Amino acid sequence: MNYNQQQAEWITQQILQELAASTKPADALTIPVGISNRHVHLSREDMDVLFGYGSTLTRMKAVKQPGQYAAEETVTLRGPKGELHKVRVLGPLRSATQIEISVSDGFALGVKAPVRMSGDLQDSPGIEIIGPNGRVVKTDGAIVAWRHIHISPQDAEAHALRDGMEIDVRIDGHRGGVLSHVVVRVSADAVLEMHIDVEEANGFGLRNGDCVTRVSTRSQGR
Amino acid sequence: MNYNQQQAEWITQQILQELAASTKPADALTIPVGISNRHVHLSREDMDVLFGYGSTLTRMKAVKQPGQYAAEETVTLRGPKGELHKVRVLGPLRSATQIEISVSDGFALGVKAPVRMSGDLQDSPGIEIIGPNGRVVKTDGAIVAWRHIHISPQDAEAHALRDGMEIDVRIDGHRGGVLSHVVVRVSADAVLEMHIDVEEANGFGLRNGDCVTRVSTRSQGR
Repeated sequence: MNYNQQQAEWITQQILQELAASTKPADALTIPVGISNRHVHLSREDMDVLFGYGSTLTRMKAVKQPGQYAAEETVTLRGPKGELHKVRVLGPLRSATQIEISVSDGFALGVKAPVRMSGDLQDSPGIEIIGPNGRVVKTDGAIVAWRHIHISPQDAEAHALRDGMEIDVRIDGHRGGVLSHVVVRVSADAVLEMHIDVEEANGFGLRNGDCVTRVSTRSQGR
Repeated sequence: MNYNQQQAEWITQQILQELAASTKPADALTIPVGISNRHVHLSREDMDVLFGYGSTLTRMKAVKQPGQYAAEETVTLRGPKGELHKVRVLGPLRSATQIEISVSDGFALGVKAPVRMSGDLQDSPGIEIIGPNGRVVKTDGAIVAWRHIHISPQDAEAHALRDGMEIDVRIDGHRGGVLSHVVVRVSADAVLEMHIDVEEANGFGLRNGDCVTRVSTRSQGR
């Protein structure tokens, strides 16, 4: 190793240490994990067909985001290659029916669902939904959820985050690493939480309530 | 921003650019992905019980690592909470039976399998294996595979890798990120490949044959 290289590495060490010390406290954003199993959101119209005209969802268990809940109602999903039973309905009702499955579920059903943010259903595949009162054949609505965090405007501002941004988060443990392209969703009543699906969670050895940390990485293209 | 900080940042930029330029070509290691679905490796003794005394495995399809293959034979796994059917046997026979499942499979079976390297079965849970000719109740052998790469001694030396090291790899795409703690397995006849399970693959949007790139990250503890 020559003199210049030694010098350069020593200077780099010093500078990196100083920068790390000066920037760490402000950047530290620790986010609890919420794991989503397959589920559906139903429109009023589809609820009528599946569970009876004017029927309502029965709240079984609150989820962390205010106002939302897991319902007692479940449905069957039927695709060209198979069925999935006892798929949980999440309330409240929405303007459009949306089916959130994992990549493996897609293989089991024979449906190639794209990775999308909630509500972005354009050109997503359809699927048959079967309830106790009837069935609906959707022409779209099946997606794999794009990983994202929910955050309040106050927390977002404190961490210089804006709605729609993508961040990287670090996961510790023997299946640790970095999740990139985690979309930031800012909303008034949000509780800080990162939503990932079961395969993402298991691939990283994460359980509900585990925490991840926002990190800055030199992004190298999407 | 004061004068010292500006100076420090400028120097950092220059040094990082120079170091990146000088180290990149030597570091570039691109690794094809091989995805492992649940499978079992059988001992001679368990093969005898499950498929009949002196029975042999029937080669169905070679896998990428020389000498190994998926057999036509399948078994059923039975745990306290459920069963998994048509679980593929991988050949050839081994000195000890080993059952490789995903975290989700473990929930379905009711078996808490630890994340382990192949062969490291100490204190792993057992499970019942059912074949056409009989059944065996294992007292250990169920693991979730620790992610790893297979690499030849020549490739390993070219990239300054040693058997047992852990590296980080980068994955592109909208489910991209970094996988840490990927164990390096050096063996004479190895074909370069990273083995991950179905949940890791789907969590990162990876398919068989996709490539990942080794990266250097400042590791922050395991």
